[in-house]
Amino acid sequence: MIRYITAGESHGKCISAILEGIPAGLKLTEEFINIDLALRQKGYGRGPRMKSIEHDKVSISSGVRHGKTMGSPITLTILNKDWENWKTVMSTGMADKAGFKLTSPRPGHVDLAGIIKFNTDDIRNVSERASARGTAVHVAVGAVCKKLLNEFGIKIISFTKEIGGIKAPSVCRQAGEIIKLANSSPVRCLDKNTEKLMIKAIGKAEKDGDTLGGVFTVIADKVPVGLGSHTQWDLKLDARLAQAVMSIQAVKGVEIGYGFDVARKLGSQVHDEILYSKQKGYYRKSNNAGGIEGGISNGEPIIVRAAMKPIPTLRRPLASVDILTKKRTDAQIVRSDVCAVPSAGIIGEAVVAIEIARVFCEKFGGDSIEEMKINYTNYLNMVRNR
Amino acid sequence: MIRYITAGESHGKCISAILEGIPAGLKLTEEFINIDLALRQKGYGRGPRMKSIEHDKVSISSGVRHGKTMGSPITLTILNKDWENWKTVMSTGMADKAGFKLTSPRPGHVDLAGIIKFNTDDIRNVSERASARGTAVHVAVGAVCKKLLNEFGIKIISFTKEIGGIKAPSVCRQAGEIIKLANSSPVRCLDKNTEKLMIKAIGKAEKDGDTLGGVFTVIADKVPVGLGSHTQWDLKLDARLAQAVMSIQAVKGVEIGYGFDVARKLGSQVHDEILYSKQKGYYRKSNNAGGIEGGISNGEPIIVRAAMKPIPTLRRPLASVDILTKKRTDAQIVRSDVCAVPSAGIIGEAVVAIEIARVFCEKFGGDSIEEMKINYTNYLNMVRNR
Amino acid sequence: MIRYITAGESHGKCISAILEGIPAGLKLTEEFINIDLALRQKGYGRGPRMKSIEHDKVSISSGVRHGKTMGSPITLTILNKDWENWKTVMSTGMADKAGFKLTSPRPGHVDLAGIIKFNTDDIRNVSERASARGTAVHVAVGAVCKKLLNEFGIKIISFTKEIGGIKAPSVCRQAGEIIKLANSSPVRCLDKNTEKLMIKAIGKAEKDGDTLGGVFTVIADKVPVGLGSHTQWDLKLDARLAQAVMSIQAVKGVEIGYGFDVARKLGSQVHDEILYSKQKGYYRKSNNAGGIEGGISNGEPIIVRAAMKPIPTLRRPLASVDILTKKRTDAQIVRSDVCAVPSAGIIGEAVVAIEIARVFCEKFGGDSIEEMKINYTNYLNMVRNR
Amino acid sequence: MIRYITAGESHGKCISAILEGIPAGLKLTEEFINIDLALRQKGYGRGPRMKSIEHDKVSISSGVRHGKTMGSPITLTILNKDWENWKTVMSTGMADKAGFKLTSPRPGHVDLAGIIKFNTDDIRNVSERASARGTAVHVAVGAVCKKLLNEFGIKIISFTKEIGGIKAPSVCRQAGEIIKLANSSPVRCLDKNTEKLMIKAIGKAEKDGDTLGGVFTVIADKVPVGLGSHTQWDLKLDARLAQAVMSIQAVKGVEIGYGFDVARKLGSQVHDEILYSKQKGYYRKSNNAGGIEGGISNGEPIIVRAAMKPIPTLRRPLASVDILTKKRTDAQIVRSDVCAVPSAGIIGEAVVAIEIARVFCEKFGGDSIEEMKINYTNYLNMVRNR
Repeated sequence: MIRYITAGESHGKCISAILEGIPAGLKLTEEFINIDLALRQKGYGRGPRMKSIEHDKVSISSGVRHGKTMGSPITLTILNKDWENWKTVMSTGMADKAGFKLTSPRPGHVDLAGIIKFNTDDIRNVSERASARGTAVHVAVGAVCKKLLNEFGIKIISFTKEIGGIKAPSVCRQAGEIIKLANSSPVRCLDKNTEKLMIKAIGKAEKDGDTLGGVFTVIADKVPVGLGSHTQWDLKLDARLAQAVMSIQAVKGVEIGYGFDVARKLGSQVHDEILYSKQKGYYRKSNNAGGIEGGISNGEPIIVRAAMKPIPTLRRPLASVDILTKKRTDAQIVRSDVCAVPSAGIIGEAVVAIEIARVFCEKFGGDSIEEMKINYTNYLNMVRNR
Repeated sequence: MIRYITAGESHGKCISAILEGIPAGLKLTEEFINIDLALRQKGYGRGPRMKSIEHDKVSISSGVRHGKTMGSPITLTILNKDWENWKTVMSTGMADKAGFKLTSPRPGHVDLAGIIKFNTDDIRNVSERASARGTAVHVAVGAVCKKLLNEFGIKIISFTKEIGGIKAPSVCRQAGEIIKLANSSPVRCLDKNTEKLMIKAIGKAEKDGDTLGGVFTVIADKVPVGLGSHTQWDLKLDARLAQAVMSIQAVKGVEIGYGFDVARKLGSQVHDEILYSKQKGYYRKSNNAGGIEGGISNGEPIIVRAAMKPIPTLRRPLASVDILTKKRTDAQIVRSDVCAVPSAGIIGEAVVAIEIARVFCEKFGGDSIEEMKINYTNYLNMVRNR
Repeated sequence: MIRYITAGESHGKCISAILEGIPAGLKLTEEFINIDLALRQKGYGRGPRMKSIEHDKVSISSGVRHGKTMGSPITLTILNKDWENWKTVMSTGMADKAGFKLTSPRPGHVDLAGIIKFNTDDIRNVSERASARGTAVHVAVGAVCKKLLNEFGIKIISFTKEIGGIKAPSVCRQAGEIIKLANSSPVRCLDKNTEKLMIKAIGKAEKDGDTLGGVFTVIADKVPVGLGSHTQWDLKLDARLAQAVMSIQAVKGVEIGYGFDVARKLGSQVHDEILYSKQKGYYRKSNNAGGIEGGISNGEPIIVRAAMKPIPTLRRPLASVDILTKKRTDAQIVRSDVCAVPSAGIIGEAVVAIEIARVFCEKFGGDSIEEMKINYTNYLNMVRNR
Repeated sequence: MIRYITAGESHGKCISAILEGIPAGLKLTEEFINIDLALRQKGYGRGPRMKSIEHDKVSISSGVRHGKTMGSPITLTILNKDWENWKTVMSTGMADKAGFKLTSPRPGHVDLAGIIKFNTDDIRNVSERASARGTAVHVAVGAVCKKLLNEFGIKIISFTKEIGGIKAPSVCRQAGEIIKLANSSPVRCLDKNTEKLMIKAIGKAEKDGDTLGGVFTVIADKVPVGLGSHTQWDLKLDARLAQAVMSIQAVKGVEIGYGFDVARKLGSQVHDEILYSKQKGYYRKSNNAGGIEGGISNGEPIIVRAAMKPIPTLRRPLASVDILTKKRTDAQIVRSDVCAVPSAGIIGEAVVAIEIARVFCEKFGGDSIEEMKINYTNYLNMVRNR
């Protein structure tokens, strides 16, 4: 069974994860993971830190030997390339010159709630861990899970649906095409016209010292029918995806399929009628359910959408209160992305991949890729003969 | 630590739950739980089953003695009052006359995915468990958690925001007022004018053999700062709430605070500036974050919104395929609610209460109400002195 | 994945469990479970309560339909046949005449630690839950798991190894023979001569108002190679078995295979040399490891042994202190078994069955017996071809 | 809540762990952890690898800043100092010259079961992870938990009880004295005479190319009453300790308190009578229960004993079968400790510390040391006033 845990502070020595439950025999290289790490760092709207210092590379230090997983836990580490400059501020050891404390909590961040909960007077002690920087290692974990799913023909893809209120039109496209279009757009938007408007909006926000949020879509393609379960609240696939996606920094809303729009339609308009043909087996003409009914994948593509709030660190800072003096002050300015929605889509892919890999492994069992493939093939045969 | 597991089929002998981790010494009666069970069953738009047969009453058979919890697991059971009529169809023992099988899967339900996953040829074997009937026992579990939270001044409330596209206007109200207005409205809507339009829309859908969905809001009031944690993806309070709410039957979208609307605003417009006064301590003038920043409660009311799809069982049935003959057929008609959004709000309260009680117990520890209260009071003192 | 949770007080209305993760399509009847419940209640050395009032019968109220599991949670309930006489003392509701409180904690029981932890002044509030009566429902859960394992040829058996220091000689026997001999002995001892001595020792202890403990052995026969995992501490099969067996009331020691004796031998004397023949595949001539190496089943029978302390409630009571007056007093006398080792073996079978079923389901996946069987067969083919 | 996961292969680049749930504000240095790492490596009977290459030093790379924990996950890494020599054999990347495969499984090791389960033809792919080398990182995790427990006056100590059948006499000693005596003995034996005999036995086994096991004792001193719970099987403290200790490589038996000897006594001889004095509160004159009754700590020292089998890798190898040729062969010789019981005691301390810290945090809650201390003090006051 897949489980994972991450660790690391934004400007600490490294961020890392231990991922367990990937079957033995899966081909896996650092290069494969680095592709997704690079995609996370790209995107119009990212600040100077993204552009200059960080070019994330993962290092695998356990669980893989000679290019293949062994069934043992996989350790994934991403070094902080700028560690030299942070050695004192973020030292784990005692430090004489620890530097000044951060005392101006930023609205929209963990800062204020965090220092109260953990009883500290330096916001850095919580903000470093809460930073979206930590998502890099989720992307690494997600890449491993994607590699596993790829072996079974499952693809996890994403694109930007909205930025700052500018929405891309809905068009139906093949998975391969979506990947190509998203990867070639600086905002991961599938529509060239909308892309231009998005870039313009980001430019304006940047000029104004402001930030923008948006909406991204993640699709899991070729997921077999039967993942997740209706039998217990915490086994439902949609619920698990909702947790995973909502756990991404700055996400404030999650939808499956039609999502909130479904609340505004009649029952006769939204449910995906069931059809059958000898060739295809059961199929649907629409996919308003987003591939999940009753907490179980139904064989259609799984569609998850998420709303991301504008980045809470503004160059033109919001009002705050100094936690020591209790005087009105400006919120700390720590970094300066203007819009991170394109990156968030990549992170969304990762967490969706992890959850789908998790339920996949639960259903198909097996300790090696070979065993899992036999189990999978047999199940598909059972499905076909229904 | 709180954990719970539920069981039971819709027309089986009973539905039940075992709830663990409630501290000892909490006053608890069946009557208190029955109040919420009754609220779940009310509401304009419910079908005849709701109106006639079921008047749910919980029975506590463990974990409580002489009106107080003992710290041991609490068993909550709700009998099926119509069991006499279902004894044969739902018998756990061998049955000669098992009755006909259900073979027409309903779009929007677990039916088709479920029978394939669990390899059965009777849809009843999955639909009985997937039924929204099962939510009654979540409401019972939630009521126990509410009782615990009430001891600490925390209230969980809900109301209907939208039905069939008809939206209630946003007005700021006190918790007590919301409870009163919602409980006195047949659709749990706080606005009398909107209520009329909602009732009319439900009436029309009923006449047309159709169904309606909507949006409900759950608020957790007086939650202290510091519940949940930013330190790991699966400890974030918003993520856990998202899982809990998305696990409710028919929910397809979840938002915290501003939710999807936040994606359409500038950073400077949405983040809740931090203020301080000697009397109030830290406070905000707005609550767009919905009470959670960085996965931690920030002391403001927690606001969760969810989109519910129209009930998938239509009196005017959708197209389906008979799973035995593979011929086109009409989807099974099993029950006939037209709109269950008002009930869904009560279920939403329950699952939010459970998650908040869970993080509450994690933070404050303690095996008895008395111990927990001392811990809580001391923490509030620490907060006040920050 | 299998998980379960139990509830219920000894003299409450019922004890119950919810068991989740049993695949669909398993034949299961209450009668099958009742066989083990009866075995638990038998045995020389049990007190009058066992003999007269309780003849446990399980009731299945969910998860099973027409004699087969559905993949949904299974609720198992055992009613307290003497409930009429306990209705007031154990009432969940307010009670005017609650009866006197128990205030003399028994050494060796949870009594004193429990009332302090849960902050109560009535020992009954903790002792009722801690009672070994609760093991009946573990036996029921174990019986379901045994039924599952039986489908794959795995048998879980037990016998009494020692009572009050009287040890049965070690003889090698077939599983079927062990079952027959154990079930026909009033102390579940395989050796007739030892049986007589054990019965005599129990008789003497009874006369003296004293109690006896002992040692029982549980064997899991025909377990395939490859269950459990060395890759993480909490996945090791031996460790999980140790937790399960140590969780049984009164168990103070657990051994796998040679156990403590292994500590007194040379390496060359204890490790089971590896052999191979075309017919058998890999095999061993000895099984000192008890079927588990490195946390993984190795294909040999799994052997678990446990030490049970003498029942702590003595007819001739031990010294204690009244928790209200703080005066020296006699420990409460609540029941009067003299020796429960034969029953403990049956409980041991149950918890071992549960853990093995758990790792079995983890490895083989599948949501129906049919799917699981295909996966299992394919794995055995892989093993054979190694 | 404390949870942790470890990773790493014996000759890989490093072994590591992520530990979560340690409250903020705990003073923690690498030096403190290194003390226990050194103790694990000491001890008469260790092979040349222990003596020369490995001098383990931990590196903390997250969760700690300026000498104090932050409440975020703590990453602990121990580098393989001999990595230069293993870079190719254990490379995670593709390797041209991967070197020869290990094909002779060692009896008593995971080797044979592991390669079958994970479907590999190189034993190294499983034996590297199963190696007792991995326990170093458990010792590091345990040291952090000890540091936490120390803040509350709880000490975790250990000593060697038996080696190769040579038993040390039982003498009652203070915790401080035990630590001093154990740390100054090359076999961690408290009795000088027995120490000599043990060393002699190890020397003889070494000369014969054989190995020895033994028994070690772990004591948790000054544990408060009320940790763990009788209310559910998997919450019992003794059961959790049994799992933790049985998960240590080569452990085949676990006892709490009197353990297996308790099975040979009368009830009147073993249960620890309850006494009370104004000064001490409740107390006992004996501690046969080993500090746990009904799954809950009772305020007496917690005593855990474990049996360790002789190391299965013998210089004079056991019979095995080549997994490729299926021909009879000698088991692989990989390392050559003769006796690791003294080290195992240190590992036992670690896993006991982890479990006790876990239940400690569950009971007392709190996110900072300060908050936890207030909660703890208040509980002790409640206990005193019972």
